[in-house]
Order: sequence, then structure tokens, then C-alpha cells
Amino acid sequence: MGLTHLDEAGKARMVDISGKAVTARTAIAEGHIAMSAEALAAVRDDSAAKGNVLAVARIAGITAAKKTADLIPLCHPLPLTSVSGDFTLEEGGVRVEATASTTWGTGVEMEAMTAASLALLTIYDMVKAVDKAMVISGVRLLKKTGGKSGDWTARGGC
Amino acid sequence: MGLTHLDEAGKARMVDISGKAVTARTAIAEGHIAMSAEALAAVRDDSAAKGNVLAVARIAGITAAKKTADLIPLCHPLPLTSVSGDFTLEEGGVRVEATASTTWGTGVEMEAMTAASLALLTIYDMVKAVDKAMVISGVRLLKKTGGKSGDWTARGGC
Amino acid sequence: MGLTHLDEAGKARMVDISGKAVTARTAIAEGHIAMSAEALAAVRDDSAAKGNVLAVARIAGITAAKKTADLIPLCHPLPLTSVSGDFTLEEGGVRVEATASTTWGTGVEMEAMTAASLALLTIYDMVKAVDKAMVISGVRLLKKTGGKSGDWTARGGC
Amino acid sequence: MGLTHLDEAGKARMVDISGKAVTARTAIAEGHIAMSAEALAAVRDDSAAKGNVLAVARIAGITAAKKTADLIPLCHPLPLTSVSGDFTLEEGGVRVEATASTTWGTGVEMEAMTAASLALLTIYDMVKAVDKAMVISGVRLLKKTGGKSGDWTARGGC
Amino acid sequence: MGLTHLDEAGKARMVDISGKAVTARTAIAEGHIAMSAEALAAVRDDSAAKGNVLAVARIAGITAAKKTADLIPLCHPLPLTSVSGDFTLEEGGVRVEATASTTWGTGVEMEAMTAASLALLTIYDMVKAVDKAMVISGVRLLKKTGGKSGDWTARGGC
Amino acid sequence: MGLTHLDEAGKARMVDISGKAVTARTAIAEGHIAMSAEALAAVRDDSAAKGNVLAVARIAGITAAKKTADLIPLCHPLPLTSVSGDFTLEEGGVRVEATASTTWGTGVEMEAMTAASLALLTIYDMVKAVDKAMVISGVRLLKKTGGKSGDWTARGGC
Repeated sequence: MGLTHLDEAGKARMVDISGKAVTARTAIAEGHIAMSAEALAAVRDDSAAKGNVLAVARIAGITAAKKTADLIPLCHPLPLTSVSGDFTLEEGGVRVEATASTTWGTGVEMEAMTAASLALLTIYDMVKAVDKAMVISGVRLLKKTGGKSGDWTARGGC
Repeated sequence: MGLTHLDEAGKARMVDISGKAVTARTAIAEGHIAMSAEALAAVRDDSAAKGNVLAVARIAGITAAKKTADLIPLCHPLPLTSVSGDFTLEEGGVRVEATASTTWGTGVEMEAMTAASLALLTIYDMVKAVDKAMVISGVRLLKKTGGKSGDWTARGGC
Repeated sequence: MGLTHLDEAGKARMVDISGKAVTARTAIAEGHIAMSAEALAAVRDDSAAKGNVLAVARIAGITAAKKTADLIPLCHPLPLTSVSGDFTLEEGGVRVEATASTTWGTGVEMEAMTAASLALLTIYDMVKAVDKAMVISGVRLLKKTGGKSGDWTARGGC
Repeated sequence: MGLTHLDEAGKARMVDISGKAVTARTAIAEGHIAMSAEALAAVRDDSAAKGNVLAVARIAGITAAKKTADLIPLCHPLPLTSVSGDFTLEEGGVRVEATASTTWGTGVEMEAMTAASLALLTIYDMVKAVDKAMVISGVRLLKKTGGKSGDWTARGGC
Repeated sequence: MGLTHLDEAGKARMVDISGKAVTARTAIAEGHIAMSAEALAAVRDDSAAKGNVLAVARIAGITAAKKTADLIPLCHPLPLTSVSGDFTLEEGGVRVEATASTTWGTGVEMEAMTAASLALLTIYDMVKAVDKAMVISGVRLLKKTGGKSGDWTARGGC
Repeated sequence: MGLTHLDEAGKARMVDISGKAVTARTAIAEGHIAMSAEALAAVRDDSAAKGNVLAVARIAGITAAKKTADLIPLCHPLPLTSVSGDFTLEEGGVRVEATASTTWGTGVEMEAMTAASLALLTIYDMVKAVDKAMVISGVRLLKKTGGKSGDWTARGGC
């Protein structure tokens, strides 16, 4: 199977979706940021008080989902019907799960992936005064539903 | 050490940098996207011909670096003096290294991290027709120079 | 009635509108900027000649309506079908009335409110060399039509 | 005194600031949103729990300050050195005070005014399911410091 | 025939398209940048190696098409279903042809025109170290299909 | 002379300007849109009344200058100190001349060129209901001052 974003001469293009069915589509992406115990405590203590690090990261993720077509050159603009983000404090870091939905002729995988990535980058930004060595990993698509290619679930996904 | 993006009452703010010295600053970030052999071959073959996947990803990373303050809520706008991105095809995937520089009162870590992340997300977007299970990992700061806190290098960094 | 932008755990989210009916919707918002007689004369005289202050403010309002989903974190992106702005020079200041329409699954109240606000802020910007003490007031929704919750008119609204 | 954003022929332009001194400048703006007791209770209860309405509004204000030059047609782009927002729950509504700073050749009044306005619009958006009749008022400059024209304080300002 | 973007009082507005039929629409625009033989050789040689000037210009054009409603004040936002760009090296310069499509209630002429213009401006930017005297000309609509006004082809167009 | 936006391996990058002198720099660009007599009359008559087509085009050009680094992938962000646009109604069309200035380590040619192009595209948008065959031509740099490479004037330029 070839790369659909390149035409037969290898040139980049925004793929034509005009013939694709407009259906309800959802995508869930996840990701993780590993941090020191001190950094995680700073996130947790803040969270106990006002929840600001994760509240800011959640807004950054939701806002980024709406900018996806401006950030990923060959992504189609699409009308998001919902976006949300959930964070879990785990041993060694924070896990994010981002969900995006649309009713459109193309999928929302990139919107969910972008939301997860920007939420994690925002955590990095807010915590880097405590720990510069944090690492973002495991950013991947967990699940997609809707569309011609049908549902898809990552191995070990939800 | 506390989270500088939150004031003493735990409220988010853009930290005051007006008293910080304007100096030359550089940051290097790296990241990796793991993919199937088939997907990697698609990137490589395209690369042999026209280099478009990586060319598009490079532009996406550079452009994203310029949008960092719009994407990360508490980041300061800053005047980038250079941005670049390098890709390495490795066994199992593609590695990106992004470098950003400024002459300003605050660092460019987030610009380099954002460039690396968006370059990898763009690869995901362009290759996902071949492999939806790709995973972005190891997005971290490799090195920063300049500024009051001085130089910093990740363990095992360049 | 609860705050729909927060889920049951109090976390921010973009509300799911995928099940809502796509219907024609319109919203009208108004607002006012109070200014000194000297400032108002400057707007009026300019208006007599070339109309530039209000022409620039009108464009700022229309353009801002299109950016609403980028400005208000939990707003849905929606396809505006029309936007317009009307100004009235009154004793003591300028009144704006902004109208926005869409055919979509959610209302355009925020688009009309944002258009009115940015039109007034632009007047402030262009006239502040004459009067820094101008005050923006009375920014409110006058009327909305369409959608499941039906029509709504402000007390004393049009 | 004339309108500086219009040249002698009445045409709009971005005023030339190349000869102006680069100095530290700060501006404080305030504004208020009036709402029903039920709506205010919803904000307060949420605030007691997670603070999300005001946390989201604060981020919206800070982010909007960074977009000011993109929103107000004749505003100069300028490098913000800090932005913050404070909210007070009052009888009848919520008051916001936004502070912006730069070290540049022009003032940050519009950045502070824009931050206050967008914070209030975001509150409107998040609470409108409870009360559509909320009114934004009293958006004005409280104080500015720095620059050739010197300090300025609103009558009754801080 | 009057100017539809101005109401009967001559004020700018975003025309109401709510009553227009949602149909498939396509527009093709072209343009040309004239340059010295040395500059053209630089583009060609680069093209022979990695194709970067034209690859970057292509991405700039596609990305700009998605920003059209943000750039042209009275343009409606619309959901692009495809965008592509083709370049031809000619004697004396480079010709671009940009194609944009949507299924919507208004046409995509401005998206195609904007894509062509930004692709040419990007070539200018990347080649200006070699030749500052390049001239962009012949930016025009070649063809449009779909919509109530029907198909239209420029004299001498494709 | 090589293409500075490509490194020795032909890869795109944002050129390093950290060592370049911060000096006052100005650039002037021009362009022209040819239109039918009927279209030109529509612009002229509107201009006689309220000047809206050219007023909107002027704002579009100024606003676009501020977006240049977001539109042209390898352009540096820079702090514009002034932007203006002048229009001349000529036989056969409208001529625009855009001037941009900065005090920075790189030139403002692209900002002036982008302002001229978007002003012309906006005229196209507002007049296309009368004449779809309009052609944008002669978009070029007229003059630049400041910077290491010194002043430059186009043959036949101002």
C-alpha cells in the first residue's frame, strides 16, 4: 500500500476526500511523560490544591486538537464535535488519554494524537523548572471507530 | 523547587522574564517514531526518490517551532534566530533531532521539543495509511546552552 | 442546571454535539464603548471623511468571529454562513451590534459576542491616543434563534 | 489631538514606532461579568471543587494576550515578558484584572484589555447554559507605566 | 452588478450563504514567477537533487489554502476536501497551478488563488539571496466548477 | 551563490541570523490587479462613497504582514515597527504599494511582498462577483534599505 499523501509522482498533496461518506468517527490516543519523583510530587501536590498543571495541559490539548489542520501540513480541516482529555498519575509519571470525535468524511486520528502530544508538552513546560530530563513516550493511537476502513484497536489498546 | 508557572496561590501565569539577561540560547530535542518494516520501506523509498515525507515533516517541525507560544499556554513569545531538523532512518523507525536558537531572556527548550513532536506527528499522518500502530517515543531535551541556569546536557545526550 | 463544559468530575471538555440537529442558527450581540466628547468627535469626523475607524473595527469584528473557536478554549469550530456588524454613534460613545449565522449543530452566540468585543477593542486601540479612559460595557447577547433550546431574546433586546 | 492610526489622508496604517525608546512597560486592565445568583453559585461551587471555570478563563486571557496583534488590525507585535489574570467573585458576578508587561517601544494596553475581554467571554461561554443574560461591563484600562507618555491611572483605578 | 461584499449602505460584511446549495466545487488558479537564469538554475539543480524549493513551496501553498478565511477578511471558512499544487520549470521562471476542492455552499476560488500566491512568495523567499528582482505575475483563476453560477473558464485557460 | 535556506545537504532550514546586526530596515513592494472597466468603476464608485474595498484590502495587507512568518515556512519571526499600504486607481486596474519596517537582524522584504499580495487577493475576493478574469501581476520588491547587504532598488523602482 502506498503513501496516500503523495501522488504517483511522489509529490505531496492533500488527499481528495470528496467522495468519502460523512459518518460519525471517533479516535482515542494515549501518551505518557516520565518524570522524577520530585517532579511528580509537584504535579500531585498542585493537583491536590488547585489542579492547575493538569487543567492547563487539558486546555492545551483541547485547543491543539482544533489547530491540527494548521499544524499537520496535509491534514484536512474538519469540524470537531467533541474533544476531551483524561490524565492518570502513575508511578514514574503522568499518562494522558485524548478522545476526539467528528461527523465527517475523514478520520480524527491526528486530532487525538495532537491533543495528547500538546497536553504532554504543556506538562513538560510547566514542570521543567523541577526536572528537565522528562521524556515523552508511548504516544500512539489506541482506537478508531467509524469510516470506510472500519474500527481499529491497537494491540493492548482499550 | 516549585512550579514557576504557578504563583504562590497555585494560579497559572506567564512567568515574568523582564529582569532576565538577553543572551544567545540554543536547545536541541530528539524523538523517535517506531514503525513496521513496510512503513519504514515506504518512507525510505519515497526518500530515495523525492524525500517528500521527511521534507514535509521538516517543514512541519520548523513551522511548529514558530507557533510554540500559541500552542503552549504559558510559553513566552520569542524571536527565533534559527531552527533546523535532522532525520535518521534507523532500524525500526525514524529519529528526529530538532535545534532551535534565540537571543532572548528565556530559553528555547519548548520550541525544540515542539518542533520534534510535530515533525513526528507529521510522519505519523503521512504514513498511517500503511501502519496505524506507529508509536512516538523518547521525545526529550538533549541539550540547552545559554541563560542564567547555564548549560545542561541529558544523560546520554549529545 | 450544571455547567455543560465540565464533566461530572469537574474537568473541562468540549461538549459532544454529534447528536444535535444541524439547523439554521443566528445570534445577535451588542456592546458599547463610552468615550469623551473629543474622542467621539474624532471618530465622527473621521467617519464623515473616510469612515476608517469604524471600517477597521468592522473588519476586526468579522475576522474575530472566524477565530472564535481558537480564542474560547471549549468552543466548537463551526462554519459561519454570515457575519456583519453595525455601529451607531450615540451621545457619549459608539454602540455595536454584531450578527452571526451558521447552519450547524451548535449555536453562534460566542461568535456574535466575540465579534462585538473585538470591534469595540479595535475602536479603543484606534482612539486611545485621544482618550485612554474609554470603557467597554453592555456586551451581551440580544437574541438567538434556531437550535433545540429554541429562540431567546434578552429583556429589552431587539 | 488626532487619531494616530490614520495618516493625514485618513488611511489606516500601523504607526511607526522605530524611533521610540525600548523601555519596561506594564498595563493593567479590568472588567466584570454580571450574572444571576444561580450562575454565580455554579462558578463558585465549581471553584470550590476544581476551579475549572476560572482556570480555563485565566488560560484564555493569557493566550489571547499573545494573539493581540493578530486580533487588533493596527496593533504592533510585541514580546510579552509576563501576563497574569486575577478573578474576584463579587456579589452579582465576577471581576477580572489582567496585567501585561513588555520591554518594547510601544505599550501593552491592548494586550491587557484583550486578556480581560477574552477571560470574560470564556466565562460567558462556560456558564451560558445556566444564564444567557450575563452582561460584560466595565472593561477599561486601570493603569499603565513606562513609555514616553509616562504613567497613567484611571480615575478610581488602582 | 454590485459588489456583494458590501451591503446597500456600502459597509463590508460576510455575505449570507445559508441559502446556497451545498455542492461539489473545484477551482484552479495559476501564477508565475520570473527569475534570472542563475536563479532558475539554482531551483533546477536543487530540484534535481532533493526538490526542496518546490517541495517547501508546495507545502506553503497547501497550508495557505487552509488559512484563506483567516487571510481574506470577508471569505467564509469552508471545509476543503482536497488541495494540490503543480510546478513547471519554464524558460525564465516557474509556473504554479493550484487546485482546491470543497463540498460547500460557496466556491473555492480564493483558496486556489491564495495557494498559488503563497507558493510563489515562498519561492521568492527561498531564492532571493540569488535574485531580488524576481517578479510574480499572471496570478489568476483558470477554471471553476460547481455552484449556482455554474462552470467558468478563463480565456486561454485549461 | 547558493540558496541560503538549504544546507549543504540540500535540506530546508531557517537560516541562522543570530550573528547579524540589529539595524533599522525597510522594504517596499508593489503589485497590480488588472480588471474590467465595469469592475474598476465598482471599486471607484465604492471608493467615492465609503472607500470600503480599498479600506478592507489595506487592513488585509497590514494584517498579512504580521502573519508572514506563519505563512512562509522558512521566514524568521520579526517585530514589525510599521506597515502601510497605498493604492492607486489606474487605467485598467489598481496598483498597491506596501511598506514594512523593522529594527532587527534580518530584512522585511517578505513582509512587504506578503502585504502587497494579500491586499490584491482581497480586492480580487471583493470584486470577483463583477469580474472573475482579474489578473494579479507585477508583484515585486521595489526597494530595500538597511542590513549588511545594503540598499537595493529595482530597475525602474522608486
